[in-house]
Amino acid sequence: MSTVDHGSRRAALRTLLTDWGVEALLVTDLLNIRYLTGFTGSNAALLVDARDEPGAESRTLICTDGRYLIQVGEQVPDLEAVIDRSSAGHLIGRCADTEAGPVRLGFESHVVTVDELAAWQEQVPSLEMIRAPRLVERLRMVKDEHEVGLLRRACAAADLALAVLIERGGLRPGRTEREVGRELEFLMLEHGADGISFETIVAAGANSAIPHHRPTDAMLAAGDFVKLDFGATVEGYHSDMTRTFVLGAAADWQREVYQLVATAQAAGRAALAPGTEVAAVDAAARSVIEDAGYGELFLHGLGHGVGLEIHEAPGIGKLGTGTLLAGAAVTVEPGVYFSGRGGVRIEDTLVVREQEPELLTLTTKDLVIV
Amino acid sequence: MSTVDHGSRRAALRTLLTDWGVEALLVTDLLNIRYLTGFTGSNAALLVDARDEPGAESRTLICTDGRYLIQVGEQVPDLEAVIDRSSAGHLIGRCADTEAGPVRLGFESHVVTVDELAAWQEQVPSLEMIRAPRLVERLRMVKDEHEVGLLRRACAAADLALAVLIERGGLRPGRTEREVGRELEFLMLEHGADGISFETIVAAGANSAIPHHRPTDAMLAAGDFVKLDFGATVEGYHSDMTRTFVLGAAADWQREVYQLVATAQAAGRAALAPGTEVAAVDAAARSVIEDAGYGELFLHGLGHGVGLEIHEAPGIGKLGTGTLLAGAAVTVEPGVYFSGRGGVRIEDTLVVREQEPELLTLTTKDLVIV
Repeated sequence: MSTVDHGSRRAALRTLLTDWGVEALLVTDLLNIRYLTGFTGSNAALLVDARDEPGAESRTLICTDGRYLIQVGEQVPDLEAVIDRSSAGHLIGRCADTEAGPVRLGFESHVVTVDELAAWQEQVPSLEMIRAPRLVERLRMVKDEHEVGLLRRACAAADLALAVLIERGGLRPGRTEREVGRELEFLMLEHGADGISFETIVAAGANSAIPHHRPTDAMLAAGDFVKLDFGATVEGYHSDMTRTFVLGAAADWQREVYQLVATAQAAGRAALAPGTEVAAVDAAARSVIEDAGYGELFLHGLGHGVGLEIHEAPGIGKLGTGTLLAGAAVTVEPGVYFSGRGGVRIEDTLVVREQEPELLTLTTKDLVIV
Repeated sequence: MSTVDHGSRRAALRTLLTDWGVEALLVTDLLNIRYLTGFTGSNAALLVDARDEPGAESRTLICTDGRYLIQVGEQVPDLEAVIDRSSAGHLIGRCADTEAGPVRLGFESHVVTVDELAAWQEQVPSLEMIRAPRLVERLRMVKDEHEVGLLRRACAAADLALAVLIERGGLRPGRTEREVGRELEFLMLEHGADGISFETIVAAGANSAIPHHRPTDAMLAAGDFVKLDFGATVEGYHSDMTRTFVLGAAADWQREVYQLVATAQAAGRAALAPGTEVAAVDAAARSVIEDAGYGELFLHGLGHGVGLEIHEAPGIGKLGTGTLLAGAAVTVEPGVYFSGRGGVRIEDTLVVREQEPELLTLTTKDLVIV
C-alpha cells in the first residue's frame, strides 16, 4: 500500500488558495485537518499559508491543546505545532502579530459559525476574513491510492462480516432485526473494522420498503425480503454496501423487482466514468426503473461520494451538478420500494477510473435465497 | 415514569425569547429540535413563535423533508408540520410571506454557519436576523423527571454491563484493551442501551495514565490498573461512568492513589448543590489532590453536564463560571495520572437536587481487585 503524503495534499490546497485570492486558509473542520495533516484529535486548527513551499512550510502551523502534546508531535512531524487551548483563536492572533502574516485570510465559511466569526473579527479587526468554503472538500473528492487502500480494507471488512453472518445461518426466521444488526456490526469489528460507518440498517418484510429503516424487534420470517445496509470504517474511511436477500423461497414478484433493481444498478455502475455528468449517471439507472413503470417507487438519489465521511461530494442524483473525476469514490444504490410489501436496494462502493470503475464491495449481487 | 411534555418546554423557551427581544426563534440544531418537539429525523427546522399561547401554537411550525412525512406526524402530533426539503429556508420564506410574521427573528448563531446566514439574508433582506445563541441549551441544562428517568435507564445499562463483564471474568490478564472494550459495548446493548455514548476507553497499565486513551491491542497484565470510561444511550440520553480496577494484587502506591482519587471524588460529589459556583465544586475535589501534592497530575476539569449530548452545559472546571441549578445532570470525575506508570479516574453521573445529589451510576467505588 502506498504511504500517505500530507505535504502533497497541502501543496494542492495552496494552488486553490492562490486561485481564490487569499494568502492563507484557516482550516477548522477536523476532518479536513485530518486529511491535510494526519492529526486525529478533537480540538485543532490549521493555518495553511499559500506562500510556503513544499518542504519548507515555515508559516504553516497546527494548533491544539495540551492533551494532544505528544499525539500532535507523532502524527504531524512535518509541521510546527503550537499548544494553545483556543486553537483557531490563537492562530488568528498570530496572523495579526506577525508583520509577514496574511492580510487576506480565508476561512471555512460552510463550517464556521456566525458566533465564531464574530469573535475572531472582534479579536483582530484589521484582518480581512474571506469566505472560502469547501476548498479542502474539493480535494477530498479525488482519492489518492493510500485512501483507496483504506476504502478497500473497509469494504473487505464488510464483505467478510456478511459472508460469516450468512455462513453461520445468521439470517434465519425468528431472529429480530436488531439481533442481526448487532451481530453484523460485531463481525465487522472482528474482521478488520476500526468502527462502523453508521447504524446498520436491517429491514425485514414490509420494513424493507422503508429506505432508512432502523432495526426493531420485528422478527425475520420465511418469504421475507431482508435488506442490509451497512459499512465499516478503517482509519476513518467508510465503506457502504446494501444487499437484499430473500428468506426461504422467493415469490415471482420478488424475483422480478430484484432483477429490475440489479439491472438498474449495473447500468448506474456502467455509467461511472471521468467527465460524465452526475445527473447522467443517476439517469442511467433511473431510466431502467422508470421504463419498467416504477419510477415513482425509486425514492432517493442514486448515490454519493464516500471517504472520511459516509456522505460527501459528489452527490449523484437527478438534480446533481458537475461531472465525475477519476479517483472519486462513490456509491451506486438504486432501490424500488413497495409500501407495505417490501423493497429492494442494491448498493456498491466503487472508485471511478479512466477505464472501468473499480468495484470495492465484492459480495455477489445475484439474488441469494437464505 | 413521567411522560414527556414538549409543549411546556416550548412555553419555557417563549419566555426566554421575549426577554431576548425577538418575536420568534428559528431552531436549527437537531438536538434542540428533538428536545422541543420529540422529532428525531436528520433534517428539520423549527420556528417557535413567542406570540403563541400554550395549546394554541398556530404560528409555531416544524419543517422537514418527504422522507419524514409519516414520522413527523407521529412524533410531533401537536404542531403543524410542513414538508419541504429546504427546511430552514422554507421557514424563513414563510416569515417574509406572512404579514403577521416576525420582524425580529432570532437564530442559533452558535450553530448556524456563516454561509447559511448569508443565504437566508439574501433570500429575505427585509428580515432582521438576531443572534440568539444557546437559549434552548439553557433550558436543557435542567432536566425534567422524564429526562432523569432516561438518564437513570442509561446509567443502569452501563452498571449492569460492567457487572456482567466482571462476573464473567472479562477483566483478566491476556485479554486486549480492544477485546474488553468491544465486550463492554456489546453487553450494554444487550442490557437496555440503544447505543453507546462514546467510544469506550479501556486503558491498562501505563496506558491508564493517558486520560483519553483509545483501546489498543495492548494486553492486560497482573498488577495493572485497568481504567474503563464508558456509557450507554437510551432515547438519546447519555450515561458516563469511569471505574479503575487493579488486576491480581494492588501495590501500596496503587492503593494510595486510588484512595486519594476516591476521597477527591467524594468531596466533589458532596459539593454538588443548587446555587454553588461550578468553580467551587471543582475546587472541592481539586484541593484534596493538591493538598496531597499531586495537583499538577490532575490534568482536566472535574466534570460536565450530560444529557442529549455527552458533553453539555454546565462545564465544571477551574475556570468555569455560573452556579449549579437543581435538576442539572453532571459528571464528577477527578483523576491522577502518573505518566509511564498508571493512573486512576473515578466518575459518576449525578443529578443536582435540593437535598443531596442523586447518584445515577451505582457501581461501587471501593477499590475492586479482579
